[in-house]
Amino acid sequence: MSLSLQSITDSDLSLLEALCSVHGPSGNESAVRDFILKHIKSEMESWVAKPEIFSGDEYQNNLMLVFGKPRTALYAHMDSIGYTVRYDMNLIKIGGPLAQQFTLLKGEDSGGPFIGTLIGEGNELSVEVESHCDASCDAPCEDQTDRALEPGTDLVYHHDFRSGSRSIQSPYLDNRMGCWLALLAARTITDGVICFTTWEEHGGGSAGYLSSQLYDRFGVRQSIICDMTYVTEGIRSGRGPVISMRDRHIPRRSYVDRVISIAREAGIPFQIEVEASGGSDGSEIQLIHRPVDWCFIGVAEEHYHTPDEKVLKVDVINALKLHSALMENL
Amino acid sequence: MSLSLQSITDSDLSLLEALCSVHGPSGNESAVRDFILKHIKSEMESWVAKPEIFSGDEYQNNLMLVFGKPRTALYAHMDSIGYTVRYDMNLIKIGGPLAQQFTLLKGEDSGGPFIGTLIGEGNELSVEVESHCDASCDAPCEDQTDRALEPGTDLVYHHDFRSGSRSIQSPYLDNRMGCWLALLAARTITDGVICFTTWEEHGGGSAGYLSSQLYDRFGVRQSIICDMTYVTEGIRSGRGPVISMRDRHIPRRSYVDRVISIAREAGIPFQIEVEASGGSDGSEIQLIHRPVDWCFIGVAEEHYHTPDEKVLKVDVINALKLHSALMENL
Amino acid sequence: MSLSLQSITDSDLSLLEALCSVHGPSGNESAVRDFILKHIKSEMESWVAKPEIFSGDEYQNNLMLVFGKPRTALYAHMDSIGYTVRYDMNLIKIGGPLAQQFTLLKGEDSGGPFIGTLIGEGNELSVEVESHCDASCDAPCEDQTDRALEPGTDLVYHHDFRSGSRSIQSPYLDNRMGCWLALLAARTITDGVICFTTWEEHGGGSAGYLSSQLYDRFGVRQSIICDMTYVTEGIRSGRGPVISMRDRHIPRRSYVDRVISIAREAGIPFQIEVEASGGSDGSEIQLIHRPVDWCFIGVAEEHYHTPDEKVLKVDVINALKLHSALMENL
Repeated sequence: MSLSLQSITDSDLSLLEALCSVHGPSGNESAVRDFILKHIKSEMESWVAKPEIFSGDEYQNNLMLVFGKPRTALYAHMDSIGYTVRYDMNLIKIGGPLAQQFTLLKGEDSGGPFIGTLIGEGNELSVEVESHCDASCDAPCEDQTDRALEPGTDLVYHHDFRSGSRSIQSPYLDNRMGCWLALLAARTITDGVICFTTWEEHGGGSAGYLSSQLYDRFGVRQSIICDMTYVTEGIRSGRGPVISMRDRHIPRRSYVDRVISIAREAGIPFQIEVEASGGSDGSEIQLIHRPVDWCFIGVAEEHYHTPDEKVLKVDVINALKLHSALMENL
Repeated sequence: MSLSLQSITDSDLSLLEALCSVHGPSGNESAVRDFILKHIKSEMESWVAKPEIFSGDEYQNNLMLVFGKPRTALYAHMDSIGYTVRYDMNLIKIGGPLAQQFTLLKGEDSGGPFIGTLIGEGNELSVEVESHCDASCDAPCEDQTDRALEPGTDLVYHHDFRSGSRSIQSPYLDNRMGCWLALLAARTITDGVICFTTWEEHGGGSAGYLSSQLYDRFGVRQSIICDMTYVTEGIRSGRGPVISMRDRHIPRRSYVDRVISIAREAGIPFQIEVEASGGSDGSEIQLIHRPVDWCFIGVAEEHYHTPDEKVLKVDVINALKLHSALMENL
Repeated sequence: MSLSLQSITDSDLSLLEALCSVHGPSGNESAVRDFILKHIKSEMESWVAKPEIFSGDEYQNNLMLVFGKPRTALYAHMDSIGYTVRYDMNLIKIGGPLAQQFTLLKGEDSGGPFIGTLIGEGNELSVEVESHCDASCDAPCEDQTDRALEPGTDLVYHHDFRSGSRSIQSPYLDNRMGCWLALLAARTITDGVICFTTWEEHGGGSAGYLSSQLYDRFGVRQSIICDMTYVTEGIRSGRGPVISMRDRHIPRRSYVDRVISIAREAGIPFQIEVEASGGSDGSEIQLIHRPVDWCFIGVAEEHYHTPDEKVLKVDVINALKLHSALMENL
């Protein structure tokens, strides 16, 4: 069942590009969930095992795939960072966006879709509407620069996907790339769970709910977080996926040691990350009232949480190998 | 079952005034719980439906009313902000009180009840005892200005209820008015739950426990928070109850959209609130490990968290209409 | 069943000394768990009642003893503060260590055990390796001053246990003394639970999981935290164990009042603590979604969270009496 992926196909890249453009800031992930669900239903006939699918209003915006007799669950969050319109076109943050002034944003309110420009820095942010829709739109573009957005409208980075020979760059690789890696891994999983989670970027993430459910219903006590991380003095692009020893929370050492030994035995290159702050769906699992272990696996990005998130393809391929090895051997 | 309340009766006002004067800082809510329980038992014969009552030591200081076949739970917190005596008459905060120096406080330790004065500002606070009891007391007032209070004694604002033709002003409208609105709504609820919660102001609120119980035992996945909020650049007194799109947590968009559409269809005026910080019993529900949705509904106050909290009656009446419409139609 | 301990035996002191030297920073407590489990198995034949033991991978690093028909659970955390190696010998904190520069640290990575020295202050910390092992080691000591430690390696204070006629001083009295008090109390418990918990110092503590389990499986709603606290303007060594009215969380007043009245009736000296910040396993229990009460009982330390934590034996003896009285009478 080992995976022999050596490169990323054009079809896979198209899927990733599409995923990166779907609107889904924290709390408003239903379009991403629907996109992934539709993809799964069209693809799963070719998968090694057919999962049971858990979704619908009683799962909020979450989506869960249960394969065979699961021991380990893989978590990929669907939600993205972004902004909420407060009053008078001022913006407040969803999660921790780090965009520069004049970044292009997009959204939709009862007046229809729009493209806007981010104004200001730090926490003094606002938006100016540029046009009523995307440049790819066929309708005649009327001037919308006086358009006021409704309070509560949520905005995300405008899509801008760039694939080079060695790298991929796009807004929202964090964490549509995690979702995409989970979908690629799904092709060969025989026993395990994939959870597409919500609210990871902003707090109150659903990984706590899903991991509690999985423990209660299936006895699943092992978790792997499939997400993105950032280049630091200790982490470099091109040196393999990142295995985190800790962030603001500390996973159980004996479990992380097992993850590391599986990576070593599989001959997959990896880097060890050690951080004092930050968190992930792993933090949500740390805080549940069940004995569930977790370990964060990330692909290192440059320009984290900006519209220019950039990864190396070699790290992506090795991350997929690592996730597949972990789902098989943990 | 729609409510036709157009004004607030004297009897209703008396109930609110009494509620505002009961001692109940976070962690010490049993007197409020007992007051509400006694009121319910004397009134419920006239209600449209008789709820099952959940209370007692196995529910800590909480109180829960379950009507018919519940789909939605209404949460009103009973606890208030206040102060705890540390050592040498110094005070630390319970929740986030915003009172001015020389505000009148009240409390009771093993030496009996007392009235005191708040001294200092920011986090350098202390109390001086003024007298051994309220001015309404019949006993001769001995000088108590040298009386030392026991560490751990909790103090609240002295009661001071003022009802005008258009407004109501009192300490602890937050959230005895929420409790009172819930009691008025209870008269016509046929299916639903009312939760009177604890520890909301200080952290570790019981709404998490109660909402988990309600999901597990009754399958309740819909929540409405019945609380107070504050006037800002986007929120004005007189423009209707507030529906919050977010505070430090972000409720699920599709659920809030349903709340808004019910308010629109019922023709009830409302305002949309968008905040980057703050929280409520909704935050506690966001953090449980169940798929339970929540939306915050508040009455806008001036002088929030002071002894002079002030609301307009028209907003109160519309808040009651909104809660009744939501309990009926969600 | 009342306890008549008047002094601490040499054998008891040896057990405490051994406990204080076991490596067990948050997330890596398995050696402490194994040490305690071995002790229990060798001693429990002499106990008044034989508990059921819950441990193993399905309990992560936790250990739970259930005696008879439990009403109350005693929580002692096994994990300690410490440091994690980040990159290039820099250190980040586990919990809140307060050691001075040049403090001796110990740890082990794939290169074997080592002794190191803490360099720097505040959050700019690093470590220099001094030797490959303890002075008590028989092997010839080679110079290891150039040895680089692996990222993710965790370090703790070097052991340094000092027992005088009136006092005990050692790193990690917090909370190996709590574990030790729980083991002494275990000798006479007939009905109750002892929980040896994990992750208390760093966040995401297991007391939430264990207390949820105990409520669900045994209906246990009463908790006592057995831990260490610090001398302040209101708390002095020698004045008895500390009963906390609050820290950053506020336990239910009526439960704390019962604890105080049991201490009074038993004639055990105690001090009342009131703090605005800080937390314990009690905070974890406050945040579960069960109606479980808690009260923090601590022994007052000087030099808290340093390698020189110091307590008076008279306070320790009275703490043991108080825990025994509470387990019997709550």
